[in-house]
Amino acid sequence: MKKFSLTMLAVGISLSSFASEAKGHPNLILTEPGVERMRDNLGEVPLFDKSLATVKQEVDAEIAMGIDTPIPKDFSGGYTHQRHKQNFFIAQKAGVLYQVLEDEKYAKYIRDMLFQYEAMYKDLPLHPQERSYSRGKLFWQCLNDSNWLVYMSQAYDAIYDYLSADERKTLEDNLFRPFADFISLENPQFFNRVHNHSTWGIAAVGMIGLVMNDEELIQRALYGIEDDGLEVGGKDNDGGTIKVEGQRKGFFANLEEPFSPDGYYTEGPYYQRYAMYPFLILALAMENNRPDLKVLQHKDNVLLKGINALLNLSDADGEFFPLNDAQKGMSYKKASLVTAVDLAYFYGEKDPRLLSVVEKQGEVLLQESGLEAAIDIRDGKAVPFVKSSVNLSDGPNGDQGGVGILRYGNEDLTLVFKYAAQGLSHGHYDKLSFSLYEKGEEVLQDYGLARFVNIGQKGGGNYLKENTTWAKTTIAHNTLSINGTKHFDGEYDVASQHHSELFTFNAEDDNVKVVSATEENAYPGTLMHRTMAVIKDENFEKPFVLDILRVDTDKKNQYDLPFYYMGQIIDKNFTHESPTTLSPFGEDNGYQHLFVEGKGNASEGNTKFQWLQHGKYYTLTMVTNAEDEVYLTRIGANDPDFNLRRDAAITLRRNDTQDTLFVSVVEPHGSYSPVSESSINSRSSIKNLEVVFNNDDYTGVRITDVKGDTQLFIIANRDNDSSAKHKVEIDGKSYRWVGPFFYM
Amino acid sequence: MKKFSLTMLAVGISLSSFASEAKGHPNLILTEPGVERMRDNLGEVPLFDKSLATVKQEVDAEIAMGIDTPIPKDFSGGYTHQRHKQNFFIAQKAGVLYQVLEDEKYAKYIRDMLFQYEAMYKDLPLHPQERSYSRGKLFWQCLNDSNWLVYMSQAYDAIYDYLSADERKTLEDNLFRPFADFISLENPQFFNRVHNHSTWGIAAVGMIGLVMNDEELIQRALYGIEDDGLEVGGKDNDGGTIKVEGQRKGFFANLEEPFSPDGYYTEGPYYQRYAMYPFLILALAMENNRPDLKVLQHKDNVLLKGINALLNLSDADGEFFPLNDAQKGMSYKKASLVTAVDLAYFYGEKDPRLLSVVEKQGEVLLQESGLEAAIDIRDGKAVPFVKSSVNLSDGPNGDQGGVGILRYGNEDLTLVFKYAAQGLSHGHYDKLSFSLYEKGEEVLQDYGLARFVNIGQKGGGNYLKENTTWAKTTIAHNTLSINGTKHFDGEYDVASQHHSELFTFNAEDDNVKVVSATEENAYPGTLMHRTMAVIKDENFEKPFVLDILRVDTDKKNQYDLPFYYMGQIIDKNFTHESPTTLSPFGEDNGYQHLFVEGKGNASEGNTKFQWLQHGKYYTLTMVTNAEDEVYLTRIGANDPDFNLRRDAAITLRRNDTQDTLFVSVVEPHGSYSPVSESSINSRSSIKNLEVVFNNDDYTGVRITDVKGDTQLFIIANRDNDSSAKHKVEIDGKSYRWVGPFFYM
Repeated sequence: MKKFSLTMLAVGISLSSFASEAKGHPNLILTEPGVERMRDNLGEVPLFDKSLATVKQEVDAEIAMGIDTPIPKDFSGGYTHQRHKQNFFIAQKAGVLYQVLEDEKYAKYIRDMLFQYEAMYKDLPLHPQERSYSRGKLFWQCLNDSNWLVYMSQAYDAIYDYLSADERKTLEDNLFRPFADFISLENPQFFNRVHNHSTWGIAAVGMIGLVMNDEELIQRALYGIEDDGLEVGGKDNDGGTIKVEGQRKGFFANLEEPFSPDGYYTEGPYYQRYAMYPFLILALAMENNRPDLKVLQHKDNVLLKGINALLNLSDADGEFFPLNDAQKGMSYKKASLVTAVDLAYFYGEKDPRLLSVVEKQGEVLLQESGLEAAIDIRDGKAVPFVKSSVNLSDGPNGDQGGVGILRYGNEDLTLVFKYAAQGLSHGHYDKLSFSLYEKGEEVLQDYGLARFVNIGQKGGGNYLKENTTWAKTTIAHNTLSINGTKHFDGEYDVASQHHSELFTFNAEDDNVKVVSATEENAYPGTLMHRTMAVIKDENFEKPFVLDILRVDTDKKNQYDLPFYYMGQIIDKNFTHESPTTLSPFGEDNGYQHLFVEGKGNASEGNTKFQWLQHGKYYTLTMVTNAEDEVYLTRIGANDPDFNLRRDAAITLRRNDTQDTLFVSVVEPHGSYSPVSESSINSRSSIKNLEVVFNNDDYTGVRITDVKGDTQLFIIANRDNDSSAKHKVEIDGKSYRWVGPFFYM
Repeated sequence: MKKFSLTMLAVGISLSSFASEAKGHPNLILTEPGVERMRDNLGEVPLFDKSLATVKQEVDAEIAMGIDTPIPKDFSGGYTHQRHKQNFFIAQKAGVLYQVLEDEKYAKYIRDMLFQYEAMYKDLPLHPQERSYSRGKLFWQCLNDSNWLVYMSQAYDAIYDYLSADERKTLEDNLFRPFADFISLENPQFFNRVHNHSTWGIAAVGMIGLVMNDEELIQRALYGIEDDGLEVGGKDNDGGTIKVEGQRKGFFANLEEPFSPDGYYTEGPYYQRYAMYPFLILALAMENNRPDLKVLQHKDNVLLKGINALLNLSDADGEFFPLNDAQKGMSYKKASLVTAVDLAYFYGEKDPRLLSVVEKQGEVLLQESGLEAAIDIRDGKAVPFVKSSVNLSDGPNGDQGGVGILRYGNEDLTLVFKYAAQGLSHGHYDKLSFSLYEKGEEVLQDYGLARFVNIGQKGGGNYLKENTTWAKTTIAHNTLSINGTKHFDGEYDVASQHHSELFTFNAEDDNVKVVSATEENAYPGTLMHRTMAVIKDENFEKPFVLDILRVDTDKKNQYDLPFYYMGQIIDKNFTHESPTTLSPFGEDNGYQHLFVEGKGNASEGNTKFQWLQHGKYYTLTMVTNAEDEVYLTRIGANDPDFNLRRDAAITLRRNDTQDTLFVSVVEPHGSYSPVSESSINSRSSIKNLEVVFNNDDYTGVRITDVKGDTQLFIIANRDNDSSAKHKVEIDGKSYRWVGPFFYM
């Protein structure tokens, strides 16, 4: 029987798209030969055995508790939501256990649960919570209903042959088919978009279609609903546009549009981690059933590239950079990333660095790919995953800006520079913003989202209003706000039409790595050009960041450039007033959420500001003039529900100025230990930071250190051609070089 | 030669106090037989070898850099301070290396350094920084000069035999003797106190006296200066009293007065950790030279008990509870604790639990005791150090209050309840205050000190003025403030005359552990009686704290009871107003440093407040009435130099009330993971908390949980006799029991 199936699978690969019809089950994520291999290796592969034991313990505990399928009632944080969510997770796992361990109790558990759902679903009305633009039935939104079906399809596939034909017909007629139609035909505003929501809907419909061998559902998943009857321009409850002119739909569209050729997902890594699973799981199911369609290999292997991109979008601890809406702490230890990394290893080029990520994850997918990874780890094939500097383009064709990551050493210093497209409805208004990490610890933070995911007490676990009024605003980010407004005035439709442009990215020289980009649309009539370099000089203990932000504009403006430092203020070289009564920094655009704890005048020449965090010192040195103002702020104003963290920033304000230039250095140095109580190298190594040249063509910055040595950095403002020759005269001395920047 | 000395030592024990005269060097901390044993074991004991290698690397690096003895100039954070401090540390270590490795370069290094000091010291004026009440010469205060001599005595002892008699005479006449006289005879206000400063001075004088075999210095160290000419009542620059009526002095006085019979040091563990080293090192030197005086065994082994007490005053990570002035993060990994634990092991009862502490420290003292610990660790003798609940009395005779620590499990929940004496000049005005830990993480914090020790940029690394205006105040602690004033009105002299009284301490039953104490002097005319219980009930996931604070007073007052929670607010059951502009909570007594972020009315019955920290939920349930007010505050007002952390509290205020009762439960529960995004057991298990009985004799509290089960706790308010019989009738039912409290 097993041998037979194996033969059929081999034949299937060379046949037409209908080859799958003749295949047995499981054939979705598990395959018969894969299951056979897992059985054969039981007890032989430590990480696989451990993962299996963990899952078995979890499922057995749930089986012992009995099945509960309550009438849907609650938001994310509540019992009915959690129970139904737990049900589909456990059912999928029980399916794997049934296949691998061949113990019928798991099949019976799934069958009983499915029939409880079947009995309930026929007459189930819309979920009573009305907040969603596409309410589900089991959950408050179709998104979660789709999650259910993605997992339940796998459970169903696992026990397909265990069920009688009659049982299957009952489940398919009364539960699966109506369920699939509900989240697609009856909710086109959910299903027919290019959005992570739709991805789940598509995967759900496609996967149950594959199990049922229902060609209509499969086609619907791959290509969307032909005539959805939707009007152009509607919005979902996160403010995202539901339908744009000429919108594409279905799996391929969702794969092509949000993923750049480099595998960057336009919403950012937090949502990529979420969207990745349905993409991968459907692609794998297609690979197992319709390899001729080459879904897994679509767009030059973009899905596997996406996994690589995602891993590179994490800090030293594997936590994803919180670009756009993103909950901090989410990491590649997430279960969906276990799937992703195992698949990337198995279906990719067997990159042994991925095995060290698998080791950190501490578990593998209970599927052939996970088995393979566990075997190779057992056999000592893992090598460390040391992330390098990387530039990831955004946009379907990779021409809509991107994210540049400059790394020094093994995450000794990691700069994340965002010059991407808007990123759909989860995008923030933060062109040319950056965040900075030292060994996985935030030095200058990106705030992330304003939401307590799945904590019911906090707004049902959903997005809080401060996500819009604070987290998405420009002033909430380490980038330039002009005249107290947001980029694109915070207008999503306008922002979605634009993206920043890469000027240069160069990480070839270990001692000077550069990323530079321009933005012309965030503030009409204004060009912002930001160049960031990670530099390591022998007179400096650690690498530092040089930040050059040039503004070319058509009128006088007020500029605010904040740095969201983390830690305790240690020193500064300017005087400030600290009000006894704290007032907000402004009235809107996020300023209403900032209290001003201090206001001072910048120093003529250099303004210096030092803080201490996690036993490490950091000094910000800014080129300033005495008319510049410095604000010390803290988040938390107009936040009656305490939804925001009370984090601090220092903001440089320049008033009534037209074209201008902001030059800063962020310099990590030294250490402090509360145990030894010794304070080491606690002062900045910079004696002077100055602009030595600045016109439309070139900007030159000189750093003089405390030993009297100098470094010179020049960016060619107009010409980013890598072969262009440049010459600049500074202080009577000529400097000649080739390419967009010079450093000496 | 070696054998001879060993014999002499054995003889010495049975001889008079002049036995040491005949002994060779080293004889201070190192001994000839001890050195011999270290040499014999080289390469055989991993932890010892590792410690030796680390020290050798450090010393060799310093020797390579050359000796620098700069003219003294700076405060703690500055170069000259750090350099001289580094010099004595390195010299002491070089002495050990010379003895163990027998490499002359180490002896030469010490000799050269000592002669540089000798050349400088003769004409050295007072240190130019004038802040200290007892300015030093090498450092800004005699305290640091004394540190220098404690370490340099050891270095000198190590090379004593290497030097010629002429060299020794030069050093002793021009450096050591004048140095010892300066920090004692010339600074009696420093030397002749009972204070951790004096302890260092005493150890310094005693140790150099032992090396020089100078009986006058030894006697001065042990018994102080007979006629110091000081007036009663002067103050040091920390506000501590220099001389009180009938003040005792010298080593024995310093050992007897601040240490309770349980080994608790009245200033608290942070200063105990600091003071311990000179106590121990001098006691060890005396043990090696004058065993007949039984200094190490003085006061029923109080020094060894002190080490045990200190270890018990640490959290799960070995960090000391920050009682009184204390920098957070200081832990038993501190070098002085390495000395202490090794000595406690060697000279104590060879408690194998101490070996697991040594393992965590990761290094041993390069002395026979460290060798022994390392050998026994190598031989697998270590057993885990699981701390239990413990009550540590304060006061020379153990009758001046104390500190009670209730622990559940292996630090699953740790309550630190302070009902001690004032604690000398580093004491805080926080009678009956507490802090709470879960597995080493702060749940409700004690603020600690307002100081950045050794960080020059922050007030020279010294105490900041906010230490007085904030950290020492009553409102800065988790205890009751009445009428917005401090305990004892913040008057040190008054506070120093009083202490709280233990009512009961009982940790026999794992499911209900109780500490209770009274305070009658903090607010004249007012009795405060606080009872805290750590309770584990089967309907509760985790243990919780029941807090009963009863006030019996002669007039109507305003009461403030704050809880300094750590984390993000998740939920509450009362409404509040959040001002758009933040103002201070009050004008003085610490209130001026608190911003009011929210003000509301308490709920009738129970006021509930929930927060999330480090992925764990906590709920505070308080018995309140609708007239009570709730304030949500944050530290940071009137703090222009950002010397304070922006931490939060919830404060219950009760106005215009005479006798009253505060009953609360602090309940840890559940978890949240940003990776799984699952929120588990995120709600309080308490349905109702109520006072069911309250009069002068008894206070009864009933907890009804969400399953409808109840717990009843009754404290006998007057009679704490463990054999007293009690009977109370509640809701028509009689409860009878024996002892101070009842729980069912």
